[in-house]
Amino acid sequence: MNLILLFPEDFIDEHLVRLTSRRLEHVTHVHRATVGDALTVGVAEGRIGRGEITSLDKDALEMRVTLTTDPPPPLPFTLVLALPRPKVLNRVIAGATSLGVKRIYLVNAWRVEKSYWKSPRLSEENLLAQRILGLEQARDTTMPTIELRRFFRPFVEDELSAIARESLALVAHPTGATECPRKVAQPVTLAIGPEGGFIEDEIASLQRSGFTPVSLGPRILRVETAVAAVLGRLF
Amino acid sequence: MNLILLFPEDFIDEHLVRLTSRRLEHVTHVHRATVGDALTVGVAEGRIGRGEITSLDKDALEMRVTLTTDPPPPLPFTLVLALPRPKVLNRVIAGATSLGVKRIYLVNAWRVEKSYWKSPRLSEENLLAQRILGLEQARDTTMPTIELRRFFRPFVEDELSAIARESLALVAHPTGATECPRKVAQPVTLAIGPEGGFIEDEIASLQRSGFTPVSLGPRILRVETAVAAVLGRLF
Repeated sequence: MNLILLFPEDFIDEHLVRLTSRRLEHVTHVHRATVGDALTVGVAEGRIGRGEITSLDKDALEMRVTLTTDPPPPLPFTLVLALPRPKVLNRVIAGATSLGVKRIYLVNAWRVEKSYWKSPRLSEENLLAQRILGLEQARDTTMPTIELRRFFRPFVEDELSAIARESLALVAHPTGATECPRKVAQPVTLAIGPEGGFIEDEIASLQRSGFTPVSLGPRILRVETAVAAVLGRLF
Repeated sequence: MNLILLFPEDFIDEHLVRLTSRRLEHVTHVHRATVGDALTVGVAEGRIGRGEITSLDKDALEMRVTLTTDPPPPLPFTLVLALPRPKVLNRVIAGATSLGVKRIYLVNAWRVEKSYWKSPRLSEENLLAQRILGLEQARDTTMPTIELRRFFRPFVEDELSAIARESLALVAHPTGATECPRKVAQPVTLAIGPEGGFIEDEIASLQRSGFTPVSLGPRILRVETAVAAVLGRLF
């Protein structure tokens, strides 16, 4: 936790917050902070600064907050991701958030197992928790949006062109003839398939919606590794 | 497992391998393969091809192996990494391996907790297992080397200049004034610090050994995310 993310309901006065449970435990056991220490804090969707601990016991801590700087600029990037297996979903969401991604669509695909859609990890609560972890890691405050799209075809045919409008639209595809571009100056929408990739029919649908298949290199990467590598390359 | 990695001791005849335990279980339960199916295989430090299953029962499977292509080219990249906490070590090693890194030094630093050096995850056996997972993921056969350096100063002062010779030597540093370069044409040696970063004294030592501090952007990334992002950027 490189930043403690604060929410409006944490404020008990204009500059005073009161934290309990997870954040209290982290400050006590990982930061091992005591009264008088100052930690990096940030307000969700707002500015970053310091919080000086004014009181601390086993039930709660209070901090006097001074906000001084803006969060890092969002990446002009939309991630369209075939729903990963639940085991890796948390890492992917927290990882993409830490990299500065601000818009994520989790979509179905032929090779996505139906059971993945029933995972409790897709709960509003868990998806929020993973994004908070990513922001706390990166020292950022701008929450990404996550939208679930249970059906591939209507999403791609009816919605995706508008989502990708005025951006460079790419789909990662192992046999993509084109190399993924580098250091682009415009926004990017990138679609990444499930384990085993999108099927040819899905690639064709994406191409009809304006997406260009691009190769990410000769190696097959886990999705969380691929997202980081492609963002390092694009921006 | 996008490739089944084979070792000399797996061969019971010139083109015939016999597999048990982990690889047998994976083929049976994940690939759900049966006799007659062909899977992608590769020989450690050798070529890649197909293995046709000729027999399969609960104790072993046998495959007739045909090798046809070379593994992907190694990245001209050496990773010098402050020993990560044991919880993330496996992911970092498997991840770096999947990206094509072929030389890894795990080194001490001021902010590396001493207890990390006692982790069973540093055993020869576990480090090999993680590299195998990385190669199987990436569909590669060239095993990276991993060397442990328990003392920072003698490593940096006596050994590191020779390791980094004729490469671009960089150290990731949040306050690095220079942006990390892109699409370099030469080999790179990159040092990455522990959680909290290298201390200024360590940065100064690395600079005396020819390393330039570079920034990886305004966000603080987990080490496995940083390695992927920087490799996407460099190569």
